[in-house]
Amino acid sequence: MSISIAFIGLGAMGYRMASHLPKSFEQVLVWNRNFAKAEQHASEYSTQAVDIETATQADIIFSCLPTSVEVEAIITQYPPKSGAIWVDCTSGVPESAVKMAKFLQEHGAYFLDAPVSGQTIGAEKGTLTVMIGGDTKAFEQAYSAIEPFGGLIKHVGDSGAGFAVKAVNNMLLAANLWATAEGFTTLKANGVDLNNALECINASSGKSAVTEMVLPQRILNREFPLTFALPLLAKDTGIAISLAQQAKLPTPLLSLTQNLIQTANLTSDAESDFSSAVKLYESWTNIKIE
Amino acid sequence: MSISIAFIGLGAMGYRMASHLPKSFEQVLVWNRNFAKAEQHASEYSTQAVDIETATQADIIFSCLPTSVEVEAIITQYPPKSGAIWVDCTSGVPESAVKMAKFLQEHGAYFLDAPVSGQTIGAEKGTLTVMIGGDTKAFEQAYSAIEPFGGLIKHVGDSGAGFAVKAVNNMLLAANLWATAEGFTTLKANGVDLNNALECINASSGKSAVTEMVLPQRILNREFPLTFALPLLAKDTGIAISLAQQAKLPTPLLSLTQNLIQTANLTSDAESDFSSAVKLYESWTNIKIE
Amino acid sequence: MSISIAFIGLGAMGYRMASHLPKSFEQVLVWNRNFAKAEQHASEYSTQAVDIETATQADIIFSCLPTSVEVEAIITQYPPKSGAIWVDCTSGVPESAVKMAKFLQEHGAYFLDAPVSGQTIGAEKGTLTVMIGGDTKAFEQAYSAIEPFGGLIKHVGDSGAGFAVKAVNNMLLAANLWATAEGFTTLKANGVDLNNALECINASSGKSAVTEMVLPQRILNREFPLTFALPLLAKDTGIAISLAQQAKLPTPLLSLTQNLIQTANLTSDAESDFSSAVKLYESWTNIKIE
Amino acid sequence: MSISIAFIGLGAMGYRMASHLPKSFEQVLVWNRNFAKAEQHASEYSTQAVDIETATQADIIFSCLPTSVEVEAIITQYPPKSGAIWVDCTSGVPESAVKMAKFLQEHGAYFLDAPVSGQTIGAEKGTLTVMIGGDTKAFEQAYSAIEPFGGLIKHVGDSGAGFAVKAVNNMLLAANLWATAEGFTTLKANGVDLNNALECINASSGKSAVTEMVLPQRILNREFPLTFALPLLAKDTGIAISLAQQAKLPTPLLSLTQNLIQTANLTSDAESDFSSAVKLYESWTNIKIE
Repeated sequence: MSISIAFIGLGAMGYRMASHLPKSFEQVLVWNRNFAKAEQHASEYSTQAVDIETATQADIIFSCLPTSVEVEAIITQYPPKSGAIWVDCTSGVPESAVKMAKFLQEHGAYFLDAPVSGQTIGAEKGTLTVMIGGDTKAFEQAYSAIEPFGGLIKHVGDSGAGFAVKAVNNMLLAANLWATAEGFTTLKANGVDLNNALECINASSGKSAVTEMVLPQRILNREFPLTFALPLLAKDTGIAISLAQQAKLPTPLLSLTQNLIQTANLTSDAESDFSSAVKLYESWTNIKIE
Repeated sequence: MSISIAFIGLGAMGYRMASHLPKSFEQVLVWNRNFAKAEQHASEYSTQAVDIETATQADIIFSCLPTSVEVEAIITQYPPKSGAIWVDCTSGVPESAVKMAKFLQEHGAYFLDAPVSGQTIGAEKGTLTVMIGGDTKAFEQAYSAIEPFGGLIKHVGDSGAGFAVKAVNNMLLAANLWATAEGFTTLKANGVDLNNALECINASSGKSAVTEMVLPQRILNREFPLTFALPLLAKDTGIAISLAQQAKLPTPLLSLTQNLIQTANLTSDAESDFSSAVKLYESWTNIKIE
Repeated sequence: MSISIAFIGLGAMGYRMASHLPKSFEQVLVWNRNFAKAEQHASEYSTQAVDIETATQADIIFSCLPTSVEVEAIITQYPPKSGAIWVDCTSGVPESAVKMAKFLQEHGAYFLDAPVSGQTIGAEKGTLTVMIGGDTKAFEQAYSAIEPFGGLIKHVGDSGAGFAVKAVNNMLLAANLWATAEGFTTLKANGVDLNNALECINASSGKSAVTEMVLPQRILNREFPLTFALPLLAKDTGIAISLAQQAKLPTPLLSLTQNLIQTANLTSDAESDFSSAVKLYESWTNIKIE
Repeated sequence: MSISIAFIGLGAMGYRMASHLPKSFEQVLVWNRNFAKAEQHASEYSTQAVDIETATQADIIFSCLPTSVEVEAIITQYPPKSGAIWVDCTSGVPESAVKMAKFLQEHGAYFLDAPVSGQTIGAEKGTLTVMIGGDTKAFEQAYSAIEPFGGLIKHVGDSGAGFAVKAVNNMLLAANLWATAEGFTTLKANGVDLNNALECINASSGKSAVTEMVLPQRILNREFPLTFALPLLAKDTGIAISLAQQAKLPTPLLSLTQNLIQTANLTSDAESDFSSAVKLYESWTNIKIE
């Protein structure tokens, strides 16, 4: 295809996501604040490292940044050309998606909030789940550009809906994580072997992505590999709570979860994997989940 | 084999579990308080409906009753013979398992706490997860009698450990259920289509047995089929909390979950499926999870 | 004195507060959306019912409205004259106080957030606690105008500080209210006479304004007189939670309180006294706190 | 009077409580595990230090021990004589009161659960609140013996009712303590001076024994004087939760409070005053409540 694609933000996720694009597109521009990383990407995957002014003039622009704040800063300073579609894969704020969609509409362009789930391994394999909010026509047009790194690619509603689903997904992850920590500590304190218990629960109704993946691959083995930082999970749970509060909904369990994750975040190193939230709980009980 | 097997308690689970035993054993005795059900089972599966005195004198006795209270009542009134193994599939209280194991030991018999997970469908297919606490030799001896209805059959620790794992499993189920209700209501209040959101979350890190099975098969379709009653889930969450409190563990998230489930239980009809706990939450928000 | 005073918003609180002003000031202007009430006030207390344009041109303008939204609407449409001091007795939003203070500063005027505590009885007696945020000089100048209805009049910090203290005060009221409901229900379920228990607790370390006043005067006697509406308490707890979240603070107990009060609010008639929040809890336990 | 009085347990409370008895009674026997303390009391207040066998044969026996466990141990080993009244001022377990009352009844004696509130200062001044459960006749007979150290002396119900009221009182203290910590930290994070805020709240509806006494006298001044140990408050909140659970009551706010206090307890030195529970919260927020 002759359309130009740009990818802005080559972090742990973005770097891998952008690596799939050259298979389907001739011209893939990449930009990163630490520009050396963009150049490394270019040499590794035959993309083109360009300046931000150039990147933002592509036909389809992906962004994958820490928060909506960074996305808004770039979009408002370097608005895309008319007809362009901006696909923001950040785990962002629904309100910001609405604002950016309106802002781009005034420039004749489109904004899709398109956060992803599947972690670095999914980014590497190109099997990410992509949950998308915004204009359906723009969604259809951008679909083939998302496909290279996407597994399930789903339009879930108007602007902000993608971010909302992602925030709630991560909130459920957080709730399952903390509940699992409390539950398995209770078992250990009662003399139950955790590996046997885990096998039973993973064959039962209490299982979740946390018991199937996070607990065995990150916690029980005490590795806590940094692939999704705890401050980002804390941010996402905060987004979910904001959504509930704007709708005047009581959410006692999610609010408590958010408070616990935020406490873990405040008392942890910023470079901690989200799974290390359980270490706060371990410090209370003096029992290691292993 | 010439050993005799008895099955006590032919409720929704027990009736189906006992149906598999005649494939492996010549003599399968069944008993049920409402005796007509035992006779029906006998005619349907070639088991023998017998009185409680006879049933409790089998070599291996299974029980599957509402709570540990009913189990203790039968065992203390009709203790099994020396050498017998009592396999209690009730979702019972760990403390009671310790007490019953000691009581049977005085009669030269064995008590295994062997609760099951997998619901009526798993009981029907004979693929239940069985988590077992108690004497390892008795476990090995009873193994082949459990196999007909078991998928994963796992020894998880001393007496009470099986009940503990089951209680924690059901507590995690409860936490996931309530968190999911809050999360999906938040999405609906923000204009997101729940079926699309569910598809994304089931392909993401927030998934659980609740999002994969309970939500689509019981809640979103508004069927709430009664296969596991809410009062029993409330009881199980109470058991898990007791385990935590005996160990002096703080469990803020599980405690809140137990309180919410108990509130749902107190305000629901006793014949409600566990999934209908979400109806309490719906009554607060005036938003149906559908 | 020859300075002119205006009072905007003659609700249950404002009507009584404004009634004290003519003792100290010759000219007291009053305005109310339902203007008949202003006229009634004028005839009852020798104030002057005027239109909003006139009221907002007084030297000192008091406002006492449901929320900051109504205050902002009036201030931005009818900004006061240079040198004027606007004393807002609404239980408002700290962020709004900062915004209004800045807006009035541009007009050479001052904004004090000056919420009150003491309910209608305190307004009637002129013994309200007034917690004030904003410019200290404006505070000193306005002091004598606040005195007629104030008991304790306290400057607590910059713009927004008054609203913040009020929001936290009401959050503590809410927490004490709900905790008291749970505690006294626990006692009643255990056969304790609530009046005797109350007497003991009011002579002990568990006492609060709730046990000393709200429980005996509103709940135990089943009167729930409407003097402070539940939706307003729900709003105030929301303001307190927003303050915590902006500061990235975990507040597990206050968050749960806010969720419970909001649940009570959603399931109650809008014309319910704040004390009737306990009726939600009573509906769960089927035990009346009486 | 010629009746003999004994006081068992001369801790921080008991030592002071027993000091008032000689004013009204000729013969006051005292016993303490660390016997030197009994001898010191005897020399200081003209009581008689006696062995436990002698003490338990008095007409009225007071006990003031850490928990019901110690009380039961002494009573069952040294049952009082027929007609005696045992007045247990421990903050004990309601179930234990029922058991001890039944046990003493078999010996023709009486057990009153009579926990006290008012701390060491109230014990010193003889103004303690005494909340009493058990036989009303025994209560009337024991009244004059309680009076020397009691302010409000109140019969609140059958055996266990006194302990229940005390447990709920201390639970409310705990809830107010933690809520106040969260609330005042929120104010400080928003730039409000805590002393001014405290003055306003103590003149408003959010006040409690915590804001009136604990916060200014123990926390804001950073003294945390050890007069009521945190492990005892944790124990009392546990008693209150047990009462709720036996009655199948949901108590979300009290459960969370108990979990937070227990977390503070697990992470604190055993010799910490109850007020130092807030230090756990301070460690989360990195903001000192001062």
